[in-house]
Amino acid sequence: MDQLQLKELLEKFKDGDLNLDQTVESLRHLPFESLGYANVDHHRAMRQGFPEVIFGPGKTPDQIYGIASSLIRHSNNVLITRSNPQTYELIKTLDGSAVYHETCGAITVKRDETIRGAGLIAIVSAGTSDIPVADEAAVTAEIMGNRIERLFDVGVAGIHRLLSNRELLQSARVVVCVAGMEGALPSVVGGLLSVPVIAVPTSIGYGASFNGLAALLGMLNSCASNVTVVNIDNGFGAGFVASLINR
Amino acid sequence: MDQLQLKELLEKFKDGDLNLDQTVESLRHLPFESLGYANVDHHRAMRQGFPEVIFGPGKTPDQIYGIASSLIRHSNNVLITRSNPQTYELIKTLDGSAVYHETCGAITVKRDETIRGAGLIAIVSAGTSDIPVADEAAVTAEIMGNRIERLFDVGVAGIHRLLSNRELLQSARVVVCVAGMEGALPSVVGGLLSVPVIAVPTSIGYGASFNGLAALLGMLNSCASNVTVVNIDNGFGAGFVASLINR
Amino acid sequence: MDQLQLKELLEKFKDGDLNLDQTVESLRHLPFESLGYANVDHHRAMRQGFPEVIFGPGKTPDQIYGIASSLIRHSNNVLITRSNPQTYELIKTLDGSAVYHETCGAITVKRDETIRGAGLIAIVSAGTSDIPVADEAAVTAEIMGNRIERLFDVGVAGIHRLLSNRELLQSARVVVCVAGMEGALPSVVGGLLSVPVIAVPTSIGYGASFNGLAALLGMLNSCASNVTVVNIDNGFGAGFVASLINR
Amino acid sequence: MDQLQLKELLEKFKDGDLNLDQTVESLRHLPFESLGYANVDHHRAMRQGFPEVIFGPGKTPDQIYGIASSLIRHSNNVLITRSNPQTYELIKTLDGSAVYHETCGAITVKRDETIRGAGLIAIVSAGTSDIPVADEAAVTAEIMGNRIERLFDVGVAGIHRLLSNRELLQSARVVVCVAGMEGALPSVVGGLLSVPVIAVPTSIGYGASFNGLAALLGMLNSCASNVTVVNIDNGFGAGFVASLINR
Amino acid sequence: MDQLQLKELLEKFKDGDLNLDQTVESLRHLPFESLGYANVDHHRAMRQGFPEVIFGPGKTPDQIYGIASSLIRHSNNVLITRSNPQTYELIKTLDGSAVYHETCGAITVKRDETIRGAGLIAIVSAGTSDIPVADEAAVTAEIMGNRIERLFDVGVAGIHRLLSNRELLQSARVVVCVAGMEGALPSVVGGLLSVPVIAVPTSIGYGASFNGLAALLGMLNSCASNVTVVNIDNGFGAGFVASLINR
Amino acid sequence: MDQLQLKELLEKFKDGDLNLDQTVESLRHLPFESLGYANVDHHRAMRQGFPEVIFGPGKTPDQIYGIASSLIRHSNNVLITRSNPQTYELIKTLDGSAVYHETCGAITVKRDETIRGAGLIAIVSAGTSDIPVADEAAVTAEIMGNRIERLFDVGVAGIHRLLSNRELLQSARVVVCVAGMEGALPSVVGGLLSVPVIAVPTSIGYGASFNGLAALLGMLNSCASNVTVVNIDNGFGAGFVASLINR
Amino acid sequence: MDQLQLKELLEKFKDGDLNLDQTVESLRHLPFESLGYANVDHHRAMRQGFPEVIFGPGKTPDQIYGIASSLIRHSNNVLITRSNPQTYELIKTLDGSAVYHETCGAITVKRDETIRGAGLIAIVSAGTSDIPVADEAAVTAEIMGNRIERLFDVGVAGIHRLLSNRELLQSARVVVCVAGMEGALPSVVGGLLSVPVIAVPTSIGYGASFNGLAALLGMLNSCASNVTVVNIDNGFGAGFVASLINR
Amino acid sequence: MDQLQLKELLEKFKDGDLNLDQTVESLRHLPFESLGYANVDHHRAMRQGFPEVIFGPGKTPDQIYGIASSLIRHSNNVLITRSNPQTYELIKTLDGSAVYHETCGAITVKRDETIRGAGLIAIVSAGTSDIPVADEAAVTAEIMGNRIERLFDVGVAGIHRLLSNRELLQSARVVVCVAGMEGALPSVVGGLLSVPVIAVPTSIGYGASFNGLAALLGMLNSCASNVTVVNIDNGFGAGFVASLINR
Repeated sequence: MDQLQLKELLEKFKDGDLNLDQTVESLRHLPFESLGYANVDHHRAMRQGFPEVIFGPGKTPDQIYGIASSLIRHSNNVLITRSNPQTYELIKTLDGSAVYHETCGAITVKRDETIRGAGLIAIVSAGTSDIPVADEAAVTAEIMGNRIERLFDVGVAGIHRLLSNRELLQSARVVVCVAGMEGALPSVVGGLLSVPVIAVPTSIGYGASFNGLAALLGMLNSCASNVTVVNIDNGFGAGFVASLINR
Repeated sequence: MDQLQLKELLEKFKDGDLNLDQTVESLRHLPFESLGYANVDHHRAMRQGFPEVIFGPGKTPDQIYGIASSLIRHSNNVLITRSNPQTYELIKTLDGSAVYHETCGAITVKRDETIRGAGLIAIVSAGTSDIPVADEAAVTAEIMGNRIERLFDVGVAGIHRLLSNRELLQSARVVVCVAGMEGALPSVVGGLLSVPVIAVPTSIGYGASFNGLAALLGMLNSCASNVTVVNIDNGFGAGFVASLINR
Repeated sequence: MDQLQLKELLEKFKDGDLNLDQTVESLRHLPFESLGYANVDHHRAMRQGFPEVIFGPGKTPDQIYGIASSLIRHSNNVLITRSNPQTYELIKTLDGSAVYHETCGAITVKRDETIRGAGLIAIVSAGTSDIPVADEAAVTAEIMGNRIERLFDVGVAGIHRLLSNRELLQSARVVVCVAGMEGALPSVVGGLLSVPVIAVPTSIGYGASFNGLAALLGMLNSCASNVTVVNIDNGFGAGFVASLINR
Repeated sequence: MDQLQLKELLEKFKDGDLNLDQTVESLRHLPFESLGYANVDHHRAMRQGFPEVIFGPGKTPDQIYGIASSLIRHSNNVLITRSNPQTYELIKTLDGSAVYHETCGAITVKRDETIRGAGLIAIVSAGTSDIPVADEAAVTAEIMGNRIERLFDVGVAGIHRLLSNRELLQSARVVVCVAGMEGALPSVVGGLLSVPVIAVPTSIGYGASFNGLAALLGMLNSCASNVTVVNIDNGFGAGFVASLINR
Repeated sequence: MDQLQLKELLEKFKDGDLNLDQTVESLRHLPFESLGYANVDHHRAMRQGFPEVIFGPGKTPDQIYGIASSLIRHSNNVLITRSNPQTYELIKTLDGSAVYHETCGAITVKRDETIRGAGLIAIVSAGTSDIPVADEAAVTAEIMGNRIERLFDVGVAGIHRLLSNRELLQSARVVVCVAGMEGALPSVVGGLLSVPVIAVPTSIGYGASFNGLAALLGMLNSCASNVTVVNIDNGFGAGFVASLINR
Repeated sequence: MDQLQLKELLEKFKDGDLNLDQTVESLRHLPFESLGYANVDHHRAMRQGFPEVIFGPGKTPDQIYGIASSLIRHSNNVLITRSNPQTYELIKTLDGSAVYHETCGAITVKRDETIRGAGLIAIVSAGTSDIPVADEAAVTAEIMGNRIERLFDVGVAGIHRLLSNRELLQSARVVVCVAGMEGALPSVVGGLLSVPVIAVPTSIGYGASFNGLAALLGMLNSCASNVTVVNIDNGFGAGFVASLINR
Repeated sequence: MDQLQLKELLEKFKDGDLNLDQTVESLRHLPFESLGYANVDHHRAMRQGFPEVIFGPGKTPDQIYGIASSLIRHSNNVLITRSNPQTYELIKTLDGSAVYHETCGAITVKRDETIRGAGLIAIVSAGTSDIPVADEAAVTAEIMGNRIERLFDVGVAGIHRLLSNRELLQSARVVVCVAGMEGALPSVVGGLLSVPVIAVPTSIGYGASFNGLAALLGMLNSCASNVTVVNIDNGFGAGFVASLINR
Repeated sequence: MDQLQLKELLEKFKDGDLNLDQTVESLRHLPFESLGYANVDHHRAMRQGFPEVIFGPGKTPDQIYGIASSLIRHSNNVLITRSNPQTYELIKTLDGSAVYHETCGAITVKRDETIRGAGLIAIVSAGTSDIPVADEAAVTAEIMGNRIERLFDVGVAGIHRLLSNRELLQSARVVVCVAGMEGALPSVVGGLLSVPVIAVPTSIGYGASFNGLAALLGMLNSCASNVTVVNIDNGFGAGFVASLINR
């Protein structure tokens, strides 16, 4: 029931087609969405320049094609995460400007190029194996209308690499910090800066890394107060929150 | 070595008191802080209206008194977390305006009342037992110069309590979301909003809550994309990051 | 030994074909089932309209065919869980009315269509990836003679989808609630209702979901008092218990 | 806003005191509870003969007294879990008929003695140390208006004790099954019966029981299909759900 | 250095070819095996009728063939665990009497058929999926010279199956008890008997069975005092210890 | 119902006092214990020279006194584990010959001094802190009628202490092996011997010992094939099973 | 900025081309590496006779070829860990003297044969399955210029094998000790010696070994004071640290 | 049997008092210690300037006094870890020069002041709460005859504090690195240096630190190749191994 229907209901009541009790009963059962509530949900994406995200894993290329073809009609920008070249071939038939980001497997359709973020988002990663996750964060932040800088392979065991990029880091409004193994990078980066640091543990490592658990626990226990954490390998989530912070 | 000393060194070189190689050698071993680097650290607090935090646990009242008496000289605002009435009695002798926040055990000295945050920080908690942690977040955000709203006891098992405060939530720039047991609140709150949600798991619960592990894992796996997580019971960290986001 | 055989034994004793000691000895070693005890087991299924379940994993199509061909003789209804199309082809040769449920891989042979459940069983699931498990619960509840309603993709991050189906939920005698990731759905559903909610954690998720552990712990710690939990991905068990409750 | 206020609003609209847009706007922001939604919550307890539960741990006797004195005015029956004799002394001043259940620490005020449960609830426990949890389930089921039978100390290592009470078990509509250590009892009980079995792991044990984890995992993996599980030591939850099933 | 060499050394000393200090020094560095110590190891197998076990996993058929061809020369009986048909084909060329045990993948060469065990070893298993592990225990106990009885598929959810075999169980000197999922069988069996019960958890199960952890913890916490436990899926170890007990 | 009663029932049937259906019905409900089944349980202890064990923890001195005074009437030997001096004072009033074993807190009443064990039980422990658990095993084995030898403080980091007692170890029929920390002792002892080794992990250690988990896992993974394991700190269980093996 | 550039900067200041403030500002932002800091990193390898390590997993043969071809120009020795024959074929085209170590998959290019280690490094391993990890440690120590001795298959369950090599062990400056399953070897070895023992847990085992967790915990809890631990399967790290100790 | 006894045995053989077989038999059973083997153990301490360590926890002051009074007779230096002032009062009566180290609770008696370490041992710690563990390492290294430097409170969130002490670190032969929470310090320190780094995780932290597990896992997964790890809070072990490396 939208506002039109609501107005009709009230008119009917005013006109005597519905008595008071009937009207109260109808209002009592008024579905939530008819109050404009769900509309927030439906329209939120378009108003923010970021329509919809399709989480790729567990969906066939055909399924993703189906969802995407519906979304592309209503949205300016679409992001498909953790996808593959086959799916990309299908998506390209929907919109020839679609881009496949090979490192992280994301597919993006970007029609709205507006920069919405006030500052810079720095995406920092520790090792070369962490790059796919870091890149997912970068692609996410970019399609949500942010200026970003990638600073990869600056792990803490070679601290000078990080420190010699101090100025770049200090110019950021928010930093996404991606690391596997011991996950120490966010603590060092957090200690250098006065902006929020979003830490992303990765499943990179072996043995006692327990598929990213070591990095996750390390980041949750960071001695730097400006660090928050997302799920293991969740580059998308980190890029998403960084974009919200940067608005 | 501060800038003054650096200038003296350079003057000596210009005057011939030091030759080129001696000057290079001195500069090579220039301690980091003499480059103004560490000054960022020392002066950061005052410039941001939030000088220093004393983490209370494991320190005696006398130790906290010692640290605080040094800090109070240089800082406008001081926050002591997880403290107690005895320590408060000592701190009051340093500054009569010190406040003891009984719910979370924090002590605050707030001389600089400037509002630095652009928007509102909402502090939301699930159960009454989660209030101490939520309050620590609130006290932290307040002393860092933010307007805050507390919305306590709105756990997901009584979803209407949360929903009837939807407008308050939607007016916030960032939300701190505190919950123990299953830790489901951030997912629901995150789904209602388009701003960052900082989730704080608490150790409230018993049995399979494993001292907050259940809530922590729940929050890390949130299906809402705008949720990041801090350590179990880390109300301070959540309030701190929320303040940084709100600047 | 069934009651008929027991009666024969007693007749033989009365007729003098067996003396007292021989009869006592026979009764002493009477297998449990001959006391009507095991008959409960053997005959339970038929009396309840739900003969036997074959747990599919780890069995070859031929093994399942063998077990099923024996069961189909004695039972009205047969359920094979987590099976596959090859097995279905074999089962169809036993009973042409066999149905393959593609989503969850179940095969059903339903000859007894009696509705035995007094009320409605609602099967609710959070995400699209949870549907196979939810469907297993639905198929199980249906073949056990229940009216069911599926309410899929109503995860807590879009709470209005759940709330707008409140009336459907409130008409149920028991709800099966399937969710992966943070497993928050049962808490919200439980809070809305006054009937038993059977929570099924799924292994859907990645990273710190630890193959369903996060959802499992979340559900065990639910703040809603009407929630009980079954094993990860155990849609069958949830549908089974829901059927028992609904009798 | 209650129905009265809603009617007033509609009358004002009909009378022209509010125009259409104003009325739509008011309805749009109608708090959830004003639709009678929250009333379900407020009135649910009384209609079901079970008003409110106060979870005792973490609350002072005075806090419990405060909550209870409010509840006792509106409710027929009150249950306070995991309490103590001091609190009981205070509660007795509110209602002289209050009972203290020493084994599990519950306090009950039972004014409504109506039997609402259709059948019998059997409360079965494995060892003597499990009795406090089993008793909490029993007290909960009783105050919710059920006939119950206690069957304690029938652990699986002395299987004849359980089997010789087979008839009692088979007369139950639902069984609550409480066990620590290896938590095997629900599997055996579940195998004997065709009704729902609610398993409660307890923290009883030492070493590799890991405070009830062993029992919890055992119960979640039960080979009996009619077993669901609640949190470790959650006797209240088991008694609560058993009562809902028995209605 | 064997006893012969030791005697030569002493003769040399007696003959004056070595002086006292030289002899003491030689004896001081006497390798352990020269004292007949290691011989115990080398000859132990043959004296006990059980020469050597080759743990199959991680070895190629050729490697196993190599080890086995050496062992078969010196030993009466050989056991290769967790092997496969290809390896069996090779072993058969060494000894045509070699047997392949398809259920558990063991290969046995049994030349010494002596019964060394005083009593009966009962091998009991819970579900059909546990049979490979149970069979490994049975094959191990048999090749070590024991009379065994297999009692499979007697899980606790159908307790009458176990109880109707009570007499067989009570005739055993030691029982090997194999179960996955909740691992409850050893507790029930242990409670029925007064002999040692060796519990073998299996990795059978899914979800919260965590690859046998649930069964393992259950067995370690058994309330029956006569239960000891071996590693998950370690049928060989259980059969081995049962044989030692039965000597 | 015993055999006498069963015969009476059959006589009544033969005499026509009961018809066929009545007799079948009576037999159907034949309690288990009437088959002499439960008697095994009741009389087992006395026949074996080991009446009853009272597990001390969680029981008050008065409760233990109550149970013990009943047991002492019917049993020759009584063992109370993990008790204390106060309880001992009470037990002494029941039987002046009661002994308090200070190291492990056990109380024993030993009237039957028969040696029932065929061989020697060696109780071996790694560190001095493991002695209480080792002593519980020793006290248990002694009261069950075994010759025992204690060999304490022979941890693997000083392997010569163990090796110089090789002959004592090799004279044992069964070895109980108690160790905390890394729990390596059973592997070394097991490798030296050809008899069953019962490993008892203890909770001795700190940090990554996780209250005995490290020792438990170490023992379960022992590379010696003759090792089985009991629960952490379960000296009683180890002594009990060792006694059964030694019969 | 290197020292040359720094000197140029100072000359410009002396010459008046830069004023004092400009010079201070330039020095303030002096990149770390310009202070010779990072040079330590770049030149460290060559000065130590061990240029660079390429961690093989997750890199394609082509990627490794690319990195190696750059390294081989500047370094004397190169180590590629956990590689494969295909990669080896490529590397051989860069340097015909490259060696493929089949057991552990390492590829080495060794041009600098200098012995830099003062003493002997003993590499000890428990089982045959642990050899790949032990071999990685050996290859690492060798290419770093050490004399090494391999002592494989000396697990604690056959303690005489270890003891008869006591003299070899006692001649080592540092011991690398590799073991899976219960990981007991380092405790025994550590107890025999007065030199550092580097323990490497391996993922060898099954069931409760939990992929090396059991061995890892065992080693961390070693009762020998001279044991330190590296990550599961980290033969390279152990060989690396052993080499540093041996310098 | 010492060398004297061995010589007597040989003389008897030479003199004909023992024949060849008798002598061989005696030598076969020669206890290990008679070969001078155990003497290594007994005399090792004195030869190394570090006699014996008494691990304090779990021992009464009187027990420690007893052990210490025996040790002090034979040793030059004694270390008692994790002790207390009461014990210290007793030890002072044995040797007036005994020192109580209040921070870590160690008691030392140091009569042999020889410096045995070739280089410097740096003891580095992250936070003030880590100091007791770091101090235990320092006290241990000192009493074993090493020059040490303490560098405390240099956690990675304030990286400049660590970097400005780079020269001190680079002058060390071995570094002990103590950190709780995320345990990131060893990775950064390890990356700066080319010497062995012994990492000590501490139990400092809360929530997801899980009593030091987070720090432990972080350190095991360090991306710096020169890091090895000891047990949580094991300052003594780290100081001990550092001393062995420094010899």
